[in-house]
Amino acid sequence: MKVELLSVTPDAEKLIENAGRTSHLSFEQQGKDSERKFVKMIVDLRHESVLEHAYASFRISGVSRALTHQLVRHRLCSYTQQSQRYVGESNFNYVEPESIKSNKSAHAIFADFMVRTKDTYRRLKELGIENQDARFVLPNAVCSEIVVTANLREWRHIIRVRGGSTAQWEIREMAIRILRILKKKVPTVFYDFEIDEKESMVVCT
Amino acid sequence: MKVELLSVTPDAEKLIENAGRTSHLSFEQQGKDSERKFVKMIVDLRHESVLEHAYASFRISGVSRALTHQLVRHRLCSYTQQSQRYVGESNFNYVEPESIKSNKSAHAIFADFMVRTKDTYRRLKELGIENQDARFVLPNAVCSEIVVTANLREWRHIIRVRGGSTAQWEIREMAIRILRILKKKVPTVFYDFEIDEKESMVVCT
Amino acid sequence: MKVELLSVTPDAEKLIENAGRTSHLSFEQQGKDSERKFVKMIVDLRHESVLEHAYASFRISGVSRALTHQLVRHRLCSYTQQSQRYVGESNFNYVEPESIKSNKSAHAIFADFMVRTKDTYRRLKELGIENQDARFVLPNAVCSEIVVTANLREWRHIIRVRGGSTAQWEIREMAIRILRILKKKVPTVFYDFEIDEKESMVVCT
Amino acid sequence: MKVELLSVTPDAEKLIENAGRTSHLSFEQQGKDSERKFVKMIVDLRHESVLEHAYASFRISGVSRALTHQLVRHRLCSYTQQSQRYVGESNFNYVEPESIKSNKSAHAIFADFMVRTKDTYRRLKELGIENQDARFVLPNAVCSEIVVTANLREWRHIIRVRGGSTAQWEIREMAIRILRILKKKVPTVFYDFEIDEKESMVVCT
Repeated sequence: MKVELLSVTPDAEKLIENAGRTSHLSFEQQGKDSERKFVKMIVDLRHESVLEHAYASFRISGVSRALTHQLVRHRLCSYTQQSQRYVGESNFNYVEPESIKSNKSAHAIFADFMVRTKDTYRRLKELGIENQDARFVLPNAVCSEIVVTANLREWRHIIRVRGGSTAQWEIREMAIRILRILKKKVPTVFYDFEIDEKESMVVCT
Repeated sequence: MKVELLSVTPDAEKLIENAGRTSHLSFEQQGKDSERKFVKMIVDLRHESVLEHAYASFRISGVSRALTHQLVRHRLCSYTQQSQRYVGESNFNYVEPESIKSNKSAHAIFADFMVRTKDTYRRLKELGIENQDARFVLPNAVCSEIVVTANLREWRHIIRVRGGSTAQWEIREMAIRILRILKKKVPTVFYDFEIDEKESMVVCT
Repeated sequence: MKVELLSVTPDAEKLIENAGRTSHLSFEQQGKDSERKFVKMIVDLRHESVLEHAYASFRISGVSRALTHQLVRHRLCSYTQQSQRYVGESNFNYVEPESIKSNKSAHAIFADFMVRTKDTYRRLKELGIENQDARFVLPNAVCSEIVVTANLREWRHIIRVRGGSTAQWEIREMAIRILRILKKKVPTVFYDFEIDEKESMVVCT
Repeated sequence: MKVELLSVTPDAEKLIENAGRTSHLSFEQQGKDSERKFVKMIVDLRHESVLEHAYASFRISGVSRALTHQLVRHRLCSYTQQSQRYVGESNFNYVEPESIKSNKSAHAIFADFMVRTKDTYRRLKELGIENQDARFVLPNAVCSEIVVTANLREWRHIIRVRGGSTAQWEIREMAIRILRILKKKVPTVFYDFEIDEKESMVVCT
């Protein structure tokens, strides 16, 4: 899995403060570093709507279609995803779950199956079957690439839901990687989110 | 594929008229059958926002995960989908594209592959691999079941986009089946949509 | 203020159960009254997405434009509102806040001001000014009428936010009236919401 | 009216190209200035979803509450607005429609009314009435300030709908001012929108 930040609102916390002060017209309280105090207050009071003025876009690759099918259920994001209709998959990469990788017999079955699947896909293509129909044999494990844009309120929501202890392992790893990047870029917006490295999960205080 | 109407707003066209007349407070123009004239005007003028007051829910089953991954990209709907984490798939059904079914060699390869896939899934399960990881071998062809709710403005959008000549064949069939039902239940809302039976597609006038 | 139910999904709790059981394909557990147990579980576990399959539409009238300007900020609803461009307001009704009504001097000022405002609006109209420009003198107190449709998950959200102790009094009354109706029509969906009659507010357990 | 750009995605057209090429994995076609050709193609083909990856935030001030009540009906934006509950309005500014300003009698009535309104508001405040209730006398003409963030697909939609010949004059002016700024910052995204200076409206080719 690779998670790459493509874009984040410049001076996002300053923008959040600048926009957020509009409701009370309290602009005179702006000053050096005042955005940190302001954003912390917003987060503490759960007045999260002002966090919507700042955005971040990520390119996520090396993840399974199982993950992307879950991810695109979040309806407040914008997506552009690698298409299995337009892109041939004769040499697809795939994700192997840890529970399979660490089980010798399961791993052998899984690895063998992926070889056969590639072979099946190629034979269908050679028989003139188009990508859009040949892809019906492609398994959930096949890697996909997707660009996701969301505002910071929505990223908080996604990371909370998908990074927690009950989330599925692959999307949880994605959530943690996104959080790691966002904590560097907009630390105050995510100040109340911690990464439990031992348990590989997100904890929200 | 099976498309079943679960729920539609009762007297939907009457409701649309009743709500729609609020902007001009022109309730005195309501009468027997006046809703048809009103809804037709709304559709012709593309004042579609009032169509949002009426809803329809469908259960769609016997469709591939390729279809559902596309479908859930529509962000103004509500979904509940069969989960490959909670539901075991040892006896999955699958969708076979017509281009494969009608090609003897391709069909043999495809059918054989599905048998092997089922076998692979079962062997992984027997080795103690959980549903959520065993599903990584399940192909796009595997059947899924999904309930979708959307308002009538959004159903017009989905049917227009997914029922047209450039849409992928499986989701186009879904769009046509949904339209067939909605044309019976709320005929005026979809009066400008026709089904070209020969070409199996939706035509919007 | 008048709050009138225009439409609610028939057998909404049955529909929610029927849709909700799709994720686990646990339809065999459906039976007489099973929807109550199912919906209660959904509410308790905060798996609110399945509540989105059911809808309710209300006509709200006799409320101020102050209220409607707040209300339409909820972005997951559909609205049709009385237009001050299309509807003449020479005889507008208005909402008088209790704090003004119960203060003799304030009430006199307020009542007198409304008479003058009506007069001003009419004189502008007589001078040939159109509705859309004459309305610039109309105060927030002027009554508006609006039809709102939302799914039950969103109604839960609106009622929680707008019915609570910190909400503004007029929209809080609206939230309470809506809740009163919904508790009759879909009691289990709102079973954890109570109306504190003494304090005129909604309490969520 | 004042329209001020607070933030726009840096290198927005490059980002749109970079994200947009994900569906076909056609990154090798990126090069110097290739984003213009790519974005133009996107706009021409109406594949607008990839425009959603770029954002712009504006501060809009000196506009009436009539305008903001219309504006916030757009549900795919994020808003922070000056609150008449938190901000006292004893010295409010107001917008006077041109049709009133240019009519001597109407102007006199309007100007006089605004003086009386201010006076009424102040007297209510002096009697101990709180902002949130005193504001019931404030007219639509009263100025408000609002920060709006939307993606570029949505800005195209808003400008098309609100900048056209049938739009109301105040919001049309807003649409034109926003377009003027966006045409400088992301020219290709708006290349098919023109400003008819004589008619003060937006024309989409």
